Amino acid sequence: MTKIILDCDPGHDDAVAMLLALASPELQVLGITTVYGNVGLENTTHNALAVRELARSEVPVYAGADRPLVRERISAEAVHGASGLDGPLLPSPSRGVEEGHAVQFIIDSVLASPGEVTLVPTAALTNLALAMRLEPRIVPAIKEIVVMGGSLDSGNWTPSAEFNILCDPHAAKVVFGAGVPLVMFGLNATHQTPATPERVERFRQLGTRMGEFTAQLLEFFREHHEERYGWNGAPIHDACTVAYLLRPDLFRTASYFVDVEVNEGLAYGRTVCDVWRVTGRAPNAEVALDVNVEGFYDLLVERIGRYP
Amino acid sequence: MTKIILDCDPGHDDAVAMLLALASPELQVLGITTVYGNVGLENTTHNALAVRELARSEVPVYAGADRPLVRERISAEAVHGASGLDGPLLPSPSRGVEEGHAVQFIIDSVLASPGEVTLVPTAALTNLALAMRLEPRIVPAIKEIVVMGGSLDSGNWTPSAEFNILCDPHAAKVVFGAGVPLVMFGLNATHQTPATPERVERFRQLGTRMGEFTAQLLEFFREHHEERYGWNGAPIHDACTVAYLLRPDLFRTASYFVDVEVNEGLAYGRTVCDVWRVTGRAPNAEVALDVNVEGFYDLLVERIGRYP
Amino acid sequence: MTKIILDCDPGHDDAVAMLLALASPELQVLGITTVYGNVGLENTTHNALAVRELARSEVPVYAGADRPLVRERISAEAVHGASGLDGPLLPSPSRGVEEGHAVQFIIDSVLASPGEVTLVPTAALTNLALAMRLEPRIVPAIKEIVVMGGSLDSGNWTPSAEFNILCDPHAAKVVFGAGVPLVMFGLNATHQTPATPERVERFRQLGTRMGEFTAQLLEFFREHHEERYGWNGAPIHDACTVAYLLRPDLFRTASYFVDVEVNEGLAYGRTVCDVWRVTGRAPNAEVALDVNVEGFYDLLVERIGRYP
Amino acid sequence: MTKIILDCDPGHDDAVAMLLALASPELQVLGITTVYGNVGLENTTHNALAVRELARSEVPVYAGADRPLVRERISAEAVHGASGLDGPLLPSPSRGVEEGHAVQFIIDSVLASPGEVTLVPTAALTNLALAMRLEPRIVPAIKEIVVMGGSLDSGNWTPSAEFNILCDPHAAKVVFGAGVPLVMFGLNATHQTPATPERVERFRQLGTRMGEFTAQLLEFFREHHEERYGWNGAPIHDACTVAYLLRPDLFRTASYFVDVEVNEGLAYGRTVCDVWRVTGRAPNAEVALDVNVEGFYDLLVERIGRYP
Repeated sequence: MTKIILDCDPGHDDAVAMLLALASPELQVLGITTVYGNVGLENTTHNALAVRELARSEVPVYAGADRPLVRERISAEAVHGASGLDGPLLPSPSRGVEEGHAVQFIIDSVLASPGEVTLVPTAALTNLALAMRLEPRIVPAIKEIVVMGGSLDSGNWTPSAEFNILCDPHAAKVVFGAGVPLVMFGLNATHQTPATPERVERFRQLGTRMGEFTAQLLEFFREHHEERYGWNGAPIHDACTVAYLLRPDLFRTASYFVDVEVNEGLAYGRTVCDVWRVTGRAPNAEVALDVNVEGFYDLLVERIGRYP
Repeated sequence: MTKIILDCDPGHDDAVAMLLALASPELQVLGITTVYGNVGLENTTHNALAVRELARSEVPVYAGADRPLVRERISAEAVHGASGLDGPLLPSPSRGVEEGHAVQFIIDSVLASPGEVTLVPTAALTNLALAMRLEPRIVPAIKEIVVMGGSLDSGNWTPSAEFNILCDPHAAKVVFGAGVPLVMFGLNATHQTPATPERVERFRQLGTRMGEFTAQLLEFFREHHEERYGWNGAPIHDACTVAYLLRPDLFRTASYFVDVEVNEGLAYGRTVCDVWRVTGRAPNAEVALDVNVEGFYDLLVERIGRYP
Repeated sequence: MTKIILDCDPGHDDAVAMLLALASPELQVLGITTVYGNVGLENTTHNALAVRELARSEVPVYAGADRPLVRERISAEAVHGASGLDGPLLPSPSRGVEEGHAVQFIIDSVLASPGEVTLVPTAALTNLALAMRLEPRIVPAIKEIVVMGGSLDSGNWTPSAEFNILCDPHAAKVVFGAGVPLVMFGLNATHQTPATPERVERFRQLGTRMGEFTAQLLEFFREHHEERYGWNGAPIHDACTVAYLLRPDLFRTASYFVDVEVNEGLAYGRTVCDVWRVTGRAPNAEVALDVNVEGFYDLLVERIGRYP
Repeated sequence: MTKIILDCDPGHDDAVAMLLALASPELQVLGITTVYGNVGLENTTHNALAVRELARSEVPVYAGADRPLVRERISAEAVHGASGLDGPLLPSPSRGVEEGHAVQFIIDSVLASPGEVTLVPTAALTNLALAMRLEPRIVPAIKEIVVMGGSLDSGNWTPSAEFNILCDPHAAKVVFGAGVPLVMFGLNATHQTPATPERVERFRQLGTRMGEFTAQLLEFFREHHEERYGWNGAPIHDACTVAYLLRPDLFRTASYFVDVEVNEGLAYGRTVCDVWRVTGRAPNAEVALDVNVEGFYDLLVERIGRYP
């Protein structure tokens, strides 16, 4: 059983990633840590608590950073709505956030089980970078980082940058440069997973409370993507990370050297990937290239279907 | 008949572009202008003269800039050999370069036929940028610019940048930003045209002097690409521009806003392309996406075959 | 009595600042926090403990960050020697560093006495930036920050940048931009305080153990400055901050908007100061312009003389 | 007799520099070249013609670049008025601008008298950079460049940058980096020359047409400086260059390595000067530090007094 910490800013696709992880016996979710991002920290934390409630889970939730390391905040209300999780009705959380800072929880968890904890960030990498700088001893003790962020091809917030990385390019540079085994799910891969009406219908056909919730979540998320990209469904970016931990065979990856541009300019926040190995730098990331999208949805539907 | 000026730094693929243009009655080649680039200006000019000799053409050749606008020079001897055109034996030019500067020739030619001259740069854009700054009245008088340079995906000289653009990012920023109709053939497109042994053999099978020359040129050019990329043949990047003027139907393009990064950093010299239209900037370039590679080689073989 | 925390990387001039603070009844030194900088964290922490031992003080010492927020480490062994405090013989510390992280100590101290604690950083600003990001509630609760760093004119590590800021430009940007009342002692001011042989002799003439120690410290520190700048004595940069808290009348300051350049390039790590108010940004720093250097040495000699 | 070319964007202080040069028998003014800058090229050229008319000079005037090498144009109408030379009434020019481009005139003049021509730019360095790139053979043939631009301390258009350099940082980088003997009069020096009411009165007391003109020019120029800096008079920046050629003893200079920041950010357009020689780069500029301001005004009044 793989110990993981979900570090997120729910967020529609973060919510699906959470539900997938909490339904999967192969994963031991040590905790969920939140960070500002799609919307402010208060909202992302509330949303994490609400999704936990919905999942009837006991996993602790810790609030983390409310702003980036260096730059000013940006936000994604245009995509996720003002609440960060507009669309379906969410339950009122019956249990609150834990005392203590997400960064300290990450540090304590990693040091308690050296070599065993996989970090799964699906948001700005601020919490991870703060943890690495506050307690450098965690760096060699992290098993793996599986991150949704960046892109091999185009960005979604600027021509160069994807939102999670652009939220805190400096934190991303710290995390990608740390020397920890890292798997990157960038837009080039996650854009292969649009939740088309047919795929959404599969969740609804489950006939369960959670199937209906997932369907509504994906339907709301779709609107923005239809308008922006002309797509018939929203990619479930963040869920790729958890799916990879469950079924790595669903993804094709390659080893590259990836660095993050922190100088302001046209490429601010870009994950610059040395595809043709012209830098002579050793690979530091396993970069996702292709997704078996039918397998991905089969897995998602099956796991969402496990919720009573 | 389309009036064109070839602005180049031959260079193996520049040479093929020259031969293609000079063999095509649809094009009136007003002149060939040279620029430093793959190797120094003296060599690129000599190579242009030698290829003209080989083609038994009377087209005037003008030498242009010997260094970039702002940055220091880089060169590509590793790819093209010390002469810039290593491989086949070249004839000694019986006729020299014209008096006068390439930049002045470009200015005079455009002003003499406003709205009629297409510029075809397959090298650093220094000559074009100097011409635009020295005589801004040419800008609205240029019919079109069809450029080999940049990339929608990875670079070949850094992870971000393609060689021609990286040679003079500032000049590229001037040219892309000028508001002239522009077609860009970046690596994402030109990499679709490897001269595999089977394709090289088609030139040799012509049984002509020029077929043999082209075959030898492509065979030398292949070595570097096999080593660097593991490819079974070198892309004929520069010839895409001339082929496009002859047979635009061989290429699929899309309209995008493209800017060039001139700030030093990981993306120095990148053609940053707003694929998802997130900047709100109007498109300034028609960017090549796909090449009908068999049609491209059919055209090349047929035209090279026209040489006696 | 002003509550202060000294955040430092001793360092010859840090040591003088410590001795000045610990001898001054107007100041309540809550603790000494260390950071990498002139040399590595292990050495700066050891040096802080040794100087505390020498001062026969009970003030707690906390170790902090061992590297910058984002960039790679630089160091100043050329200036301070391999130990960071080469020159005089230091006592072996009889008491060690406290448990707990300097960043947590800063957070706890500020929150325990809101509006009362002055932070006195004389090194890289990493600890302060980490504290502000980990616990944003401290920002409005800090009374004042009195920092040695930056320059209105030239830098000492690059033409643009002073060492402390260059060590961690990103942290400096966070701290200068936090909105906390801030007094900046840059090189333009601190360079006015060279410890000439006559001034060093005044410490020696005290005829005390601490007078002799200070004299030896300043004599070692002078060598580098004579070689680099041709000066007849080393400026006691860091001690300006503590002297300012004791005798603000010794300094002339002006209110300016100051920002820190974090983009790589010629000005990386520069404190860019809007002297002519061309940005329209409200001042965020009181910048030291002039030092009453005789008054400064009178104060130093008198306070060092208080040690038995 | 020193051969010079004045390259300018008149401009109040450019006009004084022109008048000073045209009244001085020690200097042979080969020509006046204009460039966009304080206002557009049409206006700066008109102003140059008008000042030449006023001076009853036969010196040829050539129009040059109408925009920067790479960046977009900025302008200084706030300082010099909409005409670029608001204030005194100007004569209508009876003679027009020469045919041919300023850049070509510079190239031809330098090549015609190798080692003898001093270039005196008091504006954006676009013409000089274009000339150097179009005809690199002029570089070793230029005797000296005496430039008004940049600053050792603060800028006047941003906290970092002076207007002339900021107009075209890329051109400045080309010129400072060319390896030509170069004397820089930055704001740190030129700000020492305010035309106080007493100094203005000296021109008026000449009782001549030109004395009155100069007085009116300086009075208009003063308004902006009083408002922005609280100064009792406008510095005659540009005239320092010509004064230096006549009386170098009026200025104290030092040899430094100076580079120009062309990366966007807080220091865009700054002349970064290695005052403490930390880069190990050899000096490429003689940088003005101090002006004998009374001697400077004595010279100016005496020469303006020579006009009938």
